[in-house]
Amino acid sequence: MSLPSIQVKQANVITCKAAVAWGPGKPLVIEEVNVSPPQASEIRIKIVCTSLCRSDLTAWESQAIFPRIFGHEATGIVESVGQGVTEFTEGDHVLTVFTGECGTCRQCTSGKSNLCQILGLERRGVMHSDQGTRFTINGKPIYHYCAVSSFSEYTVVHSGCAVKINPTVPLDKVCLLSCGVAAGLGAAWNVADISIGSSVVIFGLGTVGLSVAQGAKLRGASTIIGVDNNPEKGEKAKAFGITEFINPNDSKEPVQQVIKHLTGGGADYAFECIGDTGMVTTALQACCDGWGLTVTLGVPKVKPEVTAHYGIFLTGRTLKGSLFGGWKPKSDLPSLVDMYIKKEIQVDEYITHNLSFKEVNKAFDLMREGKCLRCVMHMEK
Amino acid sequence: MSLPSIQVKQANVITCKAAVAWGPGKPLVIEEVNVSPPQASEIRIKIVCTSLCRSDLTAWESQAIFPRIFGHEATGIVESVGQGVTEFTEGDHVLTVFTGECGTCRQCTSGKSNLCQILGLERRGVMHSDQGTRFTINGKPIYHYCAVSSFSEYTVVHSGCAVKINPTVPLDKVCLLSCGVAAGLGAAWNVADISIGSSVVIFGLGTVGLSVAQGAKLRGASTIIGVDNNPEKGEKAKAFGITEFINPNDSKEPVQQVIKHLTGGGADYAFECIGDTGMVTTALQACCDGWGLTVTLGVPKVKPEVTAHYGIFLTGRTLKGSLFGGWKPKSDLPSLVDMYIKKEIQVDEYITHNLSFKEVNKAFDLMREGKCLRCVMHMEK
Ligand SMILES: [Zn+2]
Ligand SMILES: [Zn+2]
Ligand SMILES: [Zn+2]
Ligand SMILES: [Zn+2]
Repeated sequence: MSLPSIQVKQANVITCKAAVAWGPGKPLVIEEVNVSPPQASEIRIKIVCTSLCRSDLTAWESQAIFPRIFGHEATGIVESVGQGVTEFTEGDHVLTVFTGECGTCRQCTSGKSNLCQILGLERRGVMHSDQGTRFTINGKPIYHYCAVSSFSEYTVVHSGCAVKINPTVPLDKVCLLSCGVAAGLGAAWNVADISIGSSVVIFGLGTVGLSVAQGAKLRGASTIIGVDNNPEKGEKAKAFGITEFINPNDSKEPVQQVIKHLTGGGADYAFECIGDTGMVTTALQACCDGWGLTVTLGVPKVKPEVTAHYGIFLTGRTLKGSLFGGWKPKSDLPSLVDMYIKKEIQVDEYITHNLSFKEVNKAFDLMREGKCLRCVMHMEK
Repeated sequence: MSLPSIQVKQANVITCKAAVAWGPGKPLVIEEVNVSPPQASEIRIKIVCTSLCRSDLTAWESQAIFPRIFGHEATGIVESVGQGVTEFTEGDHVLTVFTGECGTCRQCTSGKSNLCQILGLERRGVMHSDQGTRFTINGKPIYHYCAVSSFSEYTVVHSGCAVKINPTVPLDKVCLLSCGVAAGLGAAWNVADISIGSSVVIFGLGTVGLSVAQGAKLRGASTIIGVDNNPEKGEKAKAFGITEFINPNDSKEPVQQVIKHLTGGGADYAFECIGDTGMVTTALQACCDGWGLTVTLGVPKVKPEVTAHYGIFLTGRTLKGSLFGGWKPKSDLPSLVDMYIKKEIQVDEYITHNLSFKEVNKAFDLMREGKCLRCVMHMEK
């Protein structure tokens, strides 16, 4: 395909501040980084707000690619566009997205999937187009994270990994629709398709789990059980739709038995939002015979294998994964933003902390200690 | 609930021939057994034909309940009915079914399940109503199998475990709709809901697997790959819709890779019809990203745990079980029999051997050696 011959304003290298992770679990360091101009099909974004998502924390603690700039849940303003980009212009307000939508691959055109083959989950820390980085310090590459790297005042993303949004929405709020809140709502609506009057159990009451709860409540689920071993989660979870709270440490009975009692034989839907493959098995056991559906959303830190007795499936249960709640970002996120504008969904309520960008390590601490839902970091203007 | 006060003709104990399994893997012995009259809600059936299904073989080789009368895929004629039975009368033609339908429990009334809570899979070798047996030899109980025990000239089943059928259909053919052929068609239609133009892979080309193939073909699947390590299966399978045959022993590449090549990235649907949990993992790997669905139908002899990497699910795959193809026997089987009458489905083609009942051990041998699809055993008239 030859690119259209549009005159593109020459963008230059920008030097700005970014939070660089130099090694696993090491506190991030605010450094001066060089951000290359966007190449063909890419855009450079001035980040306005970025929140910390658990996947950032998990990758920072465990993954091997360093030095790296984390962050993927963010909003920003387009600063410049690369060759061939017609969808965006300078000044557009955007959500970044860690899984893109090319619009043309087998997955994008299937109508049944949001797992773009071209711009799907990028795990190697490089750009989709040339497998290179757009960040350098003293000429040395700094790796990207999940095709976004929003812990930087400026970042470069593939134009398929950003979504133009209504410029009137507050960027310090809707950044949560870039990952966590959207992931939970989508798991409830798109992946599980929760029906009215049903029973739902959610393992893990972080932002994603509580967004599943919101999604279940909006669908009219009658029982929404939250499971978390942090006792502080129980009370707060009610605001998001949780009707019963179980702390597994409080009960002598296995949690799946407690859930079976509460639901008269097992829940219609179970969601694993912790990232614990053992809990996926528990979730399957907590579902009812015949049509019990378990949706797994979490990315486990340890034991990547899911294990379950074959009888679990033969008695009518289904296990399904959810990546970004089944949302196709470009096709679907604008309408989710519209729902926010019309106050049909809650987003602000997940923001427990507003921090300045330089307090990024505090956000990591709060999340590790289970003391926040979302910390939104604001860039200096 | 009090039973209606209908005059029930007094039925007596019947002494007849049955094939009794005295221990695991031991050849069955044709014995004289006493068959009690049907109790309340039960019927006594004169078996006309019974075919051998792989589950009989698996249970005979491995299970602990003996002495026992196997057999569950069968047709017969109602000989007498117990108190309160109004649905059947003497002379009705019936299919036996190993999973019943009470019509009133949470599962039966859900509209989403065929796993009756009252008359579901009976594993203990006794009748649902009183946990006793209706067979004795010298006063000692002989256990039932799967609520049917059709390897007997007469058997007693719960009235929920039989389906009245059109008396004009040949009983020596439609006995296959009592389990194997129906299980495969239902997995394709009810559980997977295969769509036109799709790609399907089937692991294990016995009667169930080849019935999945037939179901896929009738739904207009464009690629139907059969996998079996018996090289003789390949040619015969084409008659049932298989378009490509893979013998894993013929290929250096793992079978899931071969399937990915053949389907341009993975099959839309995979069916595990062997009863090998390791093959369930392979089936998941052979499915495509985004919407690949694996249906597990088999009952494993070894390793009951299904194991798969969480990434399999996060990239959009689903794992689902199928018990009796999702058919609710009383609600659904009569229409399947109608399809047979209208020649809309193939059944006769799965019958590779017609044997007399006393040749029952030959049927077991043929199945163990992979030399048959269905052996139909005919009772003496
Ligand atoms: Zn995230
Ligand atoms: Zn795509
Ligand atoms: Zn069977
Ligand atoms: Zn029932």
